[in-house]
Amino acid sequence: MYNLPSGLRDFPTEIKILRNKIFSKIEEIFKRFGFDPIETPTIEYWDTLKGKYGEEAENKLIWRFKLPYSDKEYALRYDQTVPLARFFSNHRPALPFKRYVIDKSYRYENPQRGRYREFYQADFDIIGSKNPESDAEILNIVNFIFKEFNFSNYKIIINDREFLRFIFEKNLNINEEKIKKVYTIIDKLDKIGIENVKRELNNVVGELSDKIVEIISLKNQEVIDYLSKYEEISKEINYFNNILDLLNDKSKIEINLSLVRGLDYYTGMIYEAIVEKPKIGSLSGGGRYDNLLKLFTNEEIPAVGGSIGVERLIDAGIELGIFKIDKKTYTEICVIYFEDTFKDAWNICNKLREIGLNCYIDLMRRDFNKQIKYAVDKDIRFLLIVGKKELSENSVLLQDRYTKERIKISINNLEDIYRIVKNRIENSY
Amino acid sequence: MYNLPSGLRDFPTEIKILRNKIFSKIEEIFKRFGFDPIETPTIEYWDTLKGKYGEEAENKLIWRFKLPYSDKEYALRYDQTVPLARFFSNHRPALPFKRYVIDKSYRYENPQRGRYREFYQADFDIIGSKNPESDAEILNIVNFIFKEFNFSNYKIIINDREFLRFIFEKNLNINEEKIKKVYTIIDKLDKIGIENVKRELNNVVGELSDKIVEIISLKNQEVIDYLSKYEEISKEINYFNNILDLLNDKSKIEINLSLVRGLDYYTGMIYEAIVEKPKIGSLSGGGRYDNLLKLFTNEEIPAVGGSIGVERLIDAGIELGIFKIDKKTYTEICVIYFEDTFKDAWNICNKLREIGLNCYIDLMRRDFNKQIKYAVDKDIRFLLIVGKKELSENSVLLQDRYTKERIKISINNLEDIYRIVKNRIENSY
Repeated sequence: MYNLPSGLRDFPTEIKILRNKIFSKIEEIFKRFGFDPIETPTIEYWDTLKGKYGEEAENKLIWRFKLPYSDKEYALRYDQTVPLARFFSNHRPALPFKRYVIDKSYRYENPQRGRYREFYQADFDIIGSKNPESDAEILNIVNFIFKEFNFSNYKIIINDREFLRFIFEKNLNINEEKIKKVYTIIDKLDKIGIENVKRELNNVVGELSDKIVEIISLKNQEVIDYLSKYEEISKEINYFNNILDLLNDKSKIEINLSLVRGLDYYTGMIYEAIVEKPKIGSLSGGGRYDNLLKLFTNEEIPAVGGSIGVERLIDAGIELGIFKIDKKTYTEICVIYFEDTFKDAWNICNKLREIGLNCYIDLMRRDFNKQIKYAVDKDIRFLLIVGKKELSENSVLLQDRYTKERIKISINNLEDIYRIVKNRIENSY
Repeated sequence: MYNLPSGLRDFPTEIKILRNKIFSKIEEIFKRFGFDPIETPTIEYWDTLKGKYGEEAENKLIWRFKLPYSDKEYALRYDQTVPLARFFSNHRPALPFKRYVIDKSYRYENPQRGRYREFYQADFDIIGSKNPESDAEILNIVNFIFKEFNFSNYKIIINDREFLRFIFEKNLNINEEKIKKVYTIIDKLDKIGIENVKRELNNVVGELSDKIVEIISLKNQEVIDYLSKYEEISKEINYFNNILDLLNDKSKIEINLSLVRGLDYYTGMIYEAIVEKPKIGSLSGGGRYDNLLKLFTNEEIPAVGGSIGVERLIDAGIELGIFKIDKKTYTEICVIYFEDTFKDAWNICNKLREIGLNCYIDLMRRDFNKQIKYAVDKDIRFLLIVGKKELSENSVLLQDRYTKERIKISINNLEDIYRIVKNRIENSY
């Protein structure tokens, strides 16, 4: 018995079919917004990833290695964004470059619900635009996806890296040494609650903690009102208001100064999408990152993007009953034969495949009842019964297992089967 | 500038779109034959792959490694078949288990045309059936795929491991020490020609070489006739004839005793599909492998399968002009605005996305001409011009770049745009 390494997963058919459906839907939405696909390899030189993700990732999480046959150091990609930047600098596509990718990344983390060592993300990024309409488009996609999947209790929390910088680093004048600690504490708000945040902040910045707690408790218009008092931040407020103005639907949006993420990385708008239940962390996150491309191109090239954590989305969706593992096969018809009709059934089956139907015919030489059992176990909706009596009348019987109907069809009109089957399957979704 | 390691590739949008189309079509055909998808991870324990692929693979080709954070030895999958066997033994799905997978494998080979260090294969296997209808189904799929893609000058060469064993090991009584050399020489026939094969064989088996060359020059019915003289191989001949009898189309099939492949691995029917031009090696190969599953399950479980070398298929198809890199985007409509109509254009664009159209709107604040240029460069077929005058009449202009037509459409009837665009795009394929 060979097992899989921890954090890696097999996807049996019924799970794979569900995942394919979810991925297709997400991909469809990316296309709606004018994004196009690219693909980069799973493996990069370690040098390409080095220095891009911070200490913890580099020392604990990146799958990096040498082979017995080479001195080069390789790494499996840690996310899709650094490979995107590398791709951009190598290929220099026209601007704006709007690409999506739904593919795997690798992190050597402790596995838990929604967190695996090999996992898919669905990324969408816009390179080249420094205008609020590009930030708005990212948020509109996120909202579109959650709506499309019928998530109801979700929120898209937004903030701006520049607001944080202004408030904490300029206005409250917290020094470099302390600021990281302050942000780390604020970031724990969801987990530990406001009282604990206050206490921990007090240990770092003393009395200032009252003020900070007051500020990070502001929401939505209060945030804008609070910041609007300061002329120095007016440009950023204006930009932020322009984003808000271009959102399709503001009902799920929450402006919240306690949102802190990827501080070394993001330069403007940041967001996270969360669901109230289950407690599984954010299902999507992203923002503006105007500095990353410079590491690869030596030019100032603005960028904004987001990522759907599809593993969490799927795990949450299954738990919420939004996603159902209910399709066991793509097969539409099970062709049933008797001992003396096998060859005819085989030929009819292959003709139906040519016409465009997904057909199964038993390869185990099982009897009638076992062939039926297979179709029922797999939940194949249609049976095509090829019997001696029907063949003598140049016909076959199509049985719809859902409606229990049996329809006699002439072998000369196999296209009728196509029409009936496709029609009924389409109308059942 | 960060480069990609040798043998690894980026796929820019137009290549990725072509590949998606090819992969979808192959997947569609697998579904037609009643195959369903599963997925296994990229990474397995090295122990799982060890001892399955022969010396060369183990000592030179497998991407195997340790991480700085763990003592476990991992490997990237070398093919899709061993992971399938591991999956089967872990999950024990119902029989017959017919699964397909289109995914990447990794081999540290010397890169050349059609050969990369990370590459896709499209695999399809049937586990559990020991009947000729399962072998026939594998060959029918291969034929179906090449037909569907309009390859014309292809051949599917078939042979049987049991024929080789009977002729060379039993009938000609070549001993174990020499037999591997003999097979290796025969396998080079395509590359070095019959005269060189004869000479090399002579060095190993002396006078027997004449006899061998005579036998391996037999084709099709000659093979069957030759073997039919021997009672000892009648069961295998019978099985083989049953396979032939169940093929949809024998016109591309060639029975050829010089086909030698995977001798440690295959146990019955073996095949290779090749094109006459370009000289790129086999585009598909496979056969019956009734021993592999035993390594994982300790039970005798028959299996037969094949693999489409999609990288070679694509490279050959492009060279032959069968596959064209001609689609640069999935975007169907480019919404064009003027300085004073941006907000209206933005809203209309988002409505069209909700209706189901793939729409692009400029995020760079470029002028009218540059917006048009973008659409032309990307070959986006439809423009939707949102002008002040049209807006005052509550309408917009839909322009079909291919027919040069301009159609005035009321903003209240945006569904008309959906109908027109989808209809015209569908009819243009």
